[in-house]
Amino acid sequence: MGEIENILEFLVETEKLKNILRKTRPVGLSRRENSAEHSWHVCLAALMLKDYANESIDINRVIKMLLIHDLGEIDTGDTIVYAAETAELKSAEEEGVKRLLDKLPEGQGNEYLLLWREFEAGETADSRFARAIDRVPPLIQNLHSEGHTWREYNISKEQVFSLNHRIADGSADLWCVIEKKLSSAVDKGILK
Amino acid sequence: MGEIENILEFLVETEKLKNILRKTRPVGLSRRENSAEHSWHVCLAALMLKDYANESIDINRVIKMLLIHDLGEIDTGDTIVYAAETAELKSAEEEGVKRLLDKLPEGQGNEYLLLWREFEAGETADSRFARAIDRVPPLIQNLHSEGHTWREYNISKEQVFSLNHRIADGSADLWCVIEKKLSSAVDKGILK
Repeated sequence: MGEIENILEFLVETEKLKNILRKTRPVGLSRRENSAEHSWHVCLAALMLKDYANESIDINRVIKMLLIHDLGEIDTGDTIVYAAETAELKSAEEEGVKRLLDKLPEGQGNEYLLLWREFEAGETADSRFARAIDRVPPLIQNLHSEGHTWREYNISKEQVFSLNHRIADGSADLWCVIEKKLSSAVDKGILK
Repeated sequence: MGEIENILEFLVETEKLKNILRKTRPVGLSRRENSAEHSWHVCLAALMLKDYANESIDINRVIKMLLIHDLGEIDTGDTIVYAAETAELKSAEEEGVKRLLDKLPEGQGNEYLLLWREFEAGETADSRFARAIDRVPPLIQNLHSEGHTWREYNISKEQVFSLNHRIADGSADLWCVIEKKLSSAVDKGILK
């Protein structure tokens, strides 16, 4: 029973992801999105888009990866994807993930720490697809709101195309559709 | 490519779950919780508690079920679990789920409609466990906030024990731990 108690404590602590605010706003809403609801949406996106992965993937592993991929932010906060990724930040995020997973019964957390690292490294088919999917909701949100974070943070079209091209590493078909939408946003002057 | 477009439209429409407010508040926060962040948290809870299911379960199916279990609320809103469940409400929720799934490419939505119905019926090992897990976060949230929804909606201890006893159908071990916490809340006068 002590083990279930430990898991419940982990679940209380992970509630804090609901208070980690991202830069983007959900479609149709004026408030900022939090990393917990984002995590749900990327899992749903991965599930529905699984057939368009470039490589053979294990969608169940991808979903587990996406369920936990932002847990490190509880200790570090969210960072805009266009900011330079420093080794210090990644190290702090990993420490945060470890702190949370340490609350789980002995031996249970390690699987998820390895999954988190795999996602961060992006060197496997599953993590390439998961990282591609992680980019989809913020692009959709910008495309549906006149590019609110692109404007607010002065993100250029060059930055948007360059960074999000990683979608093609996970799903060339998906990038093809998204790239057209981004080009159309450039034509409309939403993305400059 | 038309199929990916359809899936992206589905993903835009499901963003609305982020605006469906539940009665409970996340631990430590004064705002109400939305059904999207709740959906993330129950998926994480199911994953971490999977070894305590009474029966042999397929955790990947359970997680898929929980990812989509609240989608019907986009059209109907959230209803407190202690309210009488009417056939009209369930029918309206199913219509809502169908409306969303109809946005997916042909043939893709049916699997999830069946999963949604399986969750609602609660007659399989996977759905019994999923339904047990779905009760855990709101109880944790109440136990950590002096029973805020119990007080606000005049929910008696008899109602709380009677309704949440369904946790035992999915995991007797989990119910054993939760039941003790609820009894302790009664002793402290938080639950009356």
